Amino acid sequence: MQNIYRVSSASVIPKRAGHNDIRRNNLELVLRHLSTVGADSRAGIASRAGLTRATVSRLVAELIELGLVREGGQDRDGRAGRPGTVLELGEGVLAIGMEINVDYLSVLVIDLSGREVLRERSVFDAAVGPDACLTALAELYRRTRRRLAASRGRPTPVVAGVTIAVPGLVDVAAGVVAEAPNLRWRDVAVAEPLHKLLRLDGAGGEAGGVPFHVGNDANLAAIAEYRSGGWAGTPNLVYVTGEVGIGGGIIVGGQPLLGTRGYGGEVGHMNVMPDGPKCGCGRRGCWEACIGLNALLQSARQRPRGDVPPERKIEPIVKRARGGDERTLAVLTDLGHWIGVGAANLANLFDPQVIILGGYFAHLGEWILPVAQEALSAGTLARSGESLRLVTSTLGFTAAAQGGALHAIERVMSNPTTLLALT
Amino acid sequence: MQNIYRVSSASVIPKRAGHNDIRRNNLELVLRHLSTVGADSRAGIASRAGLTRATVSRLVAELIELGLVREGGQDRDGRAGRPGTVLELGEGVLAIGMEINVDYLSVLVIDLSGREVLRERSVFDAAVGPDACLTALAELYRRTRRRLAASRGRPTPVVAGVTIAVPGLVDVAAGVVAEAPNLRWRDVAVAEPLHKLLRLDGAGGEAGGVPFHVGNDANLAAIAEYRSGGWAGTPNLVYVTGEVGIGGGIIVGGQPLLGTRGYGGEVGHMNVMPDGPKCGCGRRGCWEACIGLNALLQSARQRPRGDVPPERKIEPIVKRARGGDERTLAVLTDLGHWIGVGAANLANLFDPQVIILGGYFAHLGEWILPVAQEALSAGTLARSGESLRLVTSTLGFTAAAQGGALHAIERVMSNPTTLLALT
Repeated sequence: MQNIYRVSSASVIPKRAGHNDIRRNNLELVLRHLSTVGADSRAGIASRAGLTRATVSRLVAELIELGLVREGGQDRDGRAGRPGTVLELGEGVLAIGMEINVDYLSVLVIDLSGREVLRERSVFDAAVGPDACLTALAELYRRTRRRLAASRGRPTPVVAGVTIAVPGLVDVAAGVVAEAPNLRWRDVAVAEPLHKLLRLDGAGGEAGGVPFHVGNDANLAAIAEYRSGGWAGTPNLVYVTGEVGIGGGIIVGGQPLLGTRGYGGEVGHMNVMPDGPKCGCGRRGCWEACIGLNALLQSARQRPRGDVPPERKIEPIVKRARGGDERTLAVLTDLGHWIGVGAANLANLFDPQVIILGGYFAHLGEWILPVAQEALSAGTLARSGESLRLVTSTLGFTAAAQGGALHAIERVMSNPTTLLALT
Repeated sequence: MQNIYRVSSASVIPKRAGHNDIRRNNLELVLRHLSTVGADSRAGIASRAGLTRATVSRLVAELIELGLVREGGQDRDGRAGRPGTVLELGEGVLAIGMEINVDYLSVLVIDLSGREVLRERSVFDAAVGPDACLTALAELYRRTRRRLAASRGRPTPVVAGVTIAVPGLVDVAAGVVAEAPNLRWRDVAVAEPLHKLLRLDGAGGEAGGVPFHVGNDANLAAIAEYRSGGWAGTPNLVYVTGEVGIGGGIIVGGQPLLGTRGYGGEVGHMNVMPDGPKCGCGRRGCWEACIGLNALLQSARQRPRGDVPPERKIEPIVKRARGGDERTLAVLTDLGHWIGVGAANLANLFDPQVIILGGYFAHLGEWILPVAQEALSAGTLARSGESLRLVTSTLGFTAAAQGGALHAIERVMSNPTTLLALT
């Protein structure tokens, strides 16, 4: 909808753009054109992007040089065109998303078009502490680079950026995790130590070597949902991670909600039950303490094991639910109810089109969704009708890593010339 | 902070702007220049806004014709300049904000610069039902126009727009209140019936006559805070209305959070206490049921009276608290605690710089703020330090009406030529 309450920025006096700003902006324009419209000819880009033919040719030459664009492919009308006339995004520039979570590490690599190149997820117990976590992450990074280098049929790709998802409050500018209750981290630097472990040039940031960034897992997963999930393009959506921790990634009017320090969206620590169960953060009655993975395992009298991935941990519960075990079904009904109670708060606050349940919730949809939907409708002030959906995610446990990779691609698109330092 | 998770819009291909778009945009540019920079000469506007002298002269002539700009005043350096050389915003174009609440009606009139021209608030019992409410609102509008016409020393002003604040979910496009629990309204049209009652041309909207719009009271009050309150310009702020109902107006990154249907920010219906006290909306344990004005009056064994304004209703409580009455102080401590519990949820979700308590809370700050601050800190995942403040508003009970007037001014600024229909 049109934002009738829109407030104008304090000053609308246009800034004078310098030559480099214009060049950067035009490079971005061409890249985004190919990304959103698809393969196109120079003439097509020129007319549709409102640039001159000569400018486009110069920009394209630069982008080909950087590996961001290549000749080939079919144009918008499906014609292959004469050789050299149709352009598409290059496949040689990649971005890496990684995730550290309580019980796994994951990595996902995509190219400029968002196509997945490889993914890996492995069981990992973050209780080993931050140093051992970063060492394991560095090892996963090296293995990923080796696998990319070994893949046949293409030249060694350029990795344009790495974004690491962490379940906690992240000081994005510093690459530091301020607070991650379930990892038991406080003020843990990630970007710089990783750079050092990997003996990459530069001390982090984009000064030299591959730029490493750190972000909140739920915010990044929400970006993955917004860009390529089942509800891609939905301007108002809430993504809820379903892991040991419960995080939230909130898209408002097509933009991620960050807040002052980037700490927004901590849905897991909404208080939903005064004096409720103890939470990993030390408080009582947080939503996470009611619906997090460990809370479910405890209710279902399932001992949490450190050596299996989350979907294996809930396997016995899924089996018993399928078999109609009444105690298990009661536990899942209770879980669904509390999901719905918290979801109603989010619906009242954000009026989203969809609330997407990720992580382990996606394996329990048939039992939890109907109950949760009922509690959601009961707790929402607005009659929801067709306009609010509660669904499970289709992205699985690599959503945050995928969001990290998309975030890294987004940075290249916004400023293609940063690649110069890497090629 | 820079939004590192920023997502680009799907298409960046620039639209071709027509002649009328450019003219409208330039008219807006000149108006906003005078609004933000202050009085200035044609030459000053031209150089600072990046337009030619000739274009500015043409635009200014048009704006003077519309009454939006006038010659006179001092320029940016405090010089009066030669007559006719310095331009400032006109005083002849006004905007009206009005509010319907459970126990009062209010009106506030401002000019283009945001200067208050008049205000009025009167006790009113909304229990009389929607028709009688609209009749009373129409009468208040007529009285306001008469007062404006009667004010000496200036020509009869042009009213550029009216925005009416209502404590409930508003379908802004239709000018209809979908749900207002404390008024007991459901699907009540406001803009069109008011237009008819006032026998204004056109059936609402901007087609003819003065445009009437309807908005949520808390969203509009948040705009007033953002534009002219004690925390003006703070890009991430949460405003909480303190009336019989508790609403929320949330500014995220400098823009009001609306959600899909404009129903976002319903903080009063967050569930904070399962099976807690009964709320006006029919549910149990809503924040509003814990901290709304009627909840306080009930705890303090104060009978809610329909014939006095909210600040008078709490007068006995303020007196007893000043006198050190222990029961009253305990009631206020409890109120402060529940304010803090809900505020912590909002802090976890929005990571704002400030949470502003409006309405009746502003009269109880000394007793409720310390307790609320404690519960807020205890319930927030991020260490708050200096970066999150909990304060009372300085705008009083006319905040929503003021936001309505600012909203109407904003519409004129964005599209000055709509005034042609009115002059």
